[in-house]
Amino acid sequence: MKAELQTKIHEWLETNKSDGIDLLQRLVQADSTQGNEAQAQKLVIETLKDMGLEIDVWEVDQEEISKHPYYASSRESFEGNPNVVGKWKGTGGGRSLIMNGHIDVVPAGDHEQWNHDPYSGNIEDGKMYGRGVTDMKGGNVSMLMAIQALRSLGVQLKGDVIFQSVIEEESGGAGTLAAVLRGYKADAAIIPEPTNMKLFPKQQGSMWFRVHVKGRSAHGGTRYEGVSAIEKSMIVIEHIRYLEQVRNERVTDPLYESIPIPIPINVGKIEGGDWPSSVADLVCIEGRMGVSPEETMEEAKREMERWMEVLKETDPWFETNPPKLEWFGARWVPGSIDVEHELMNAFVSNFREVMEEEPIVEASPWGTDGGLLTELGETPSLVFGPGVTQMAHFPNEYIELSKVFEVAEIMALAMMDWCGVEESSYKQRA
Amino acid sequence: MKAELQTKIHEWLETNKSDGIDLLQRLVQADSTQGNEAQAQKLVIETLKDMGLEIDVWEVDQEEISKHPYYASSRESFEGNPNVVGKWKGTGGGRSLIMNGHIDVVPAGDHEQWNHDPYSGNIEDGKMYGRGVTDMKGGNVSMLMAIQALRSLGVQLKGDVIFQSVIEEESGGAGTLAAVLRGYKADAAIIPEPTNMKLFPKQQGSMWFRVHVKGRSAHGGTRYEGVSAIEKSMIVIEHIRYLEQVRNERVTDPLYESIPIPIPINVGKIEGGDWPSSVADLVCIEGRMGVSPEETMEEAKREMERWMEVLKETDPWFETNPPKLEWFGARWVPGSIDVEHELMNAFVSNFREVMEEEPIVEASPWGTDGGLLTELGETPSLVFGPGVTQMAHFPNEYIELSKVFEVAEIMALAMMDWCGVEESSYKQRA
Repeated sequence: MKAELQTKIHEWLETNKSDGIDLLQRLVQADSTQGNEAQAQKLVIETLKDMGLEIDVWEVDQEEISKHPYYASSRESFEGNPNVVGKWKGTGGGRSLIMNGHIDVVPAGDHEQWNHDPYSGNIEDGKMYGRGVTDMKGGNVSMLMAIQALRSLGVQLKGDVIFQSVIEEESGGAGTLAAVLRGYKADAAIIPEPTNMKLFPKQQGSMWFRVHVKGRSAHGGTRYEGVSAIEKSMIVIEHIRYLEQVRNERVTDPLYESIPIPIPINVGKIEGGDWPSSVADLVCIEGRMGVSPEETMEEAKREMERWMEVLKETDPWFETNPPKLEWFGARWVPGSIDVEHELMNAFVSNFREVMEEEPIVEASPWGTDGGLLTELGETPSLVFGPGVTQMAHFPNEYIELSKVFEVAEIMALAMMDWCGVEESSYKQRA
Repeated sequence: MKAELQTKIHEWLETNKSDGIDLLQRLVQADSTQGNEAQAQKLVIETLKDMGLEIDVWEVDQEEISKHPYYASSRESFEGNPNVVGKWKGTGGGRSLIMNGHIDVVPAGDHEQWNHDPYSGNIEDGKMYGRGVTDMKGGNVSMLMAIQALRSLGVQLKGDVIFQSVIEEESGGAGTLAAVLRGYKADAAIIPEPTNMKLFPKQQGSMWFRVHVKGRSAHGGTRYEGVSAIEKSMIVIEHIRYLEQVRNERVTDPLYESIPIPIPINVGKIEGGDWPSSVADLVCIEGRMGVSPEETMEEAKREMERWMEVLKETDPWFETNPPKLEWFGARWVPGSIDVEHELMNAFVSNFREVMEEEPIVEASPWGTDGGLLTELGETPSLVFGPGVTQMAHFPNEYIELSKVFEVAEIMALAMMDWCGVEESSYKQRA
């Protein structure tokens, strides 16, 4: 009976492919960088309405949520850019599932490096291009198509399905935090971040840091009278690079085996000096530190703090002018689900079924909202999606459209296994 | 007779010291960073009026002046921030003198590194503190006191004295350019930039450059998939440092003997990356390249342009992603006066007279408006002033107040030697 339903799901997805592609394109065209999520969320709300789900739309209360220890955001207000949840109530007696996807995207960066307008959603050779198409609007569409397929075929699940379209994942997870605090929990969660269709039962945590590096100003024509904060920041960056090396040499978990740098430290921003012909007296660098699921955020913080103190041994300048390290903005708690968890099994077996090959199981190279769901929401989280890992945050970000629908199919089947299916709905359709 | 007058000048300066200090303090308190020169110029105008000089105040016409090949400014308008000239007409038959000082100051930078508010003009142990006090409002006050001393004592000069309080020196000299284009020329010029009371008959030129360094973006968690423009910019900065070394090894002029780096290249600003957890795909650095009086601006430009092309031999990344070098904003033409010029002699001999020691004669480590006066205005320029070279563009910039009046005395005497004195005015006073 399940084999028959699988065929029907497959056919339904084939028939409705163009609607799915159209939805994805409109989502990409709605630039949803931080603070601009409203338009894309409006599209999600319309879609959920058409599907007949119960909808919960709310604006996160910044004043309230900022008191929470897991809160991390550079944002002063969430007004006008809501979180969206669509609930599909089960018939009872099944396991519940959160399907979590973020609607926000990172900035497009240097537009000149894009061959297509980053907000075009142009399609070429079966690939759709645009900022956020892979991270992670494509995955969101997989979830929506999976739910829609099951509902259209009259399948009734026993467990509840809670679809979440959250803001702020790229900046520290305040959207998912707000959803957890609103009471959304489940027996497990699936998050279709761009994994190249790999299964990520472990998800790396990460947090943002900022280092202020001091110099001493002088006229550029007598620059030897000053101390360049730009030169000193180069030493600091080298030193951080060395910390990354030391930390990664410790990682032995086989799930990280094929990842060149399991827990990277990325220096992503630099800014300093205020005049071309003055010696820079202050440089600020900002970056992201990966946190292994085997350590706590606090342990990782303390390690970097101690590491920065050693700088003075490299250069006596730092003895009297220690760089100032601070933690700010976004952070992602590491997350995980047991590799033997039944949701894992459901995805592994249905992946085999649909793809006719073994899935790759690894640890994720980045943090996701799965950490908050796992740690705070007590909801073990699996990360698995159709997007292209290497294209996330890249110019010319794209997704292979066929994968969106393959993942939708795997999801629909896994949902049936995990949540359970009301027998009568099988029979009705069979 | 001159010895007698020297005593009178010395006494007059002693008597009027507090007025001079008060004027300097008010000038420092008037923050005259680029675009904000109006208030300080108002003080200058009032002072010139009180002295009874003929005054010329005009706003530079941006549209008109920007057509000139020597024009370099980041400014879109000069409205509201005029140039100011005070003319003291000679009785005839003498040599004319331009006394040129800029009223603009560079930004104060990190205020935390200042012990006094940078716009306080606080006095401690005979030093006045504040942004611009040394570069070069102190020198401007020396000139005003010198003129005022001579006039108060009834000295009539044969040659014209043209006092100029110009804007925009710190950003490329548009103020002095405008003065030259308005027709102000003279037989020689004195510019009291902060030279530690050294005489600078040669002044280094300089120009601003910008380098765009490309990387390739990626998610910070898979940073090994991208190419960090921050790391690549570190290579570019090293490469520029090496060019500086090569260029300075060529400088053999004995005037540069005691200067650690005769023609420095200063990288003063850096900015790049737009997200802590993305790999930076673009970094922009800005700096200032020193130009020797022995080379042209064009030769120096071409040398750096060729140098940047060699980068690809250091790192193949630059083969396909060459850094983009551009010249922008400010530039100062190198300037000079012959070491045997009679204005030089006038300053050297009166320095000996007043200071009772030999003056130090060197090449200046930075560009001044003397280049424009020399090259375009056909006015050979000497740079000599009371300010502290090392404190220019520095936090805690200060000047030793006694030097302001020593320089005023030397100037007054040198003006008499250079411009010539109407005999009757001597007699009148003697």
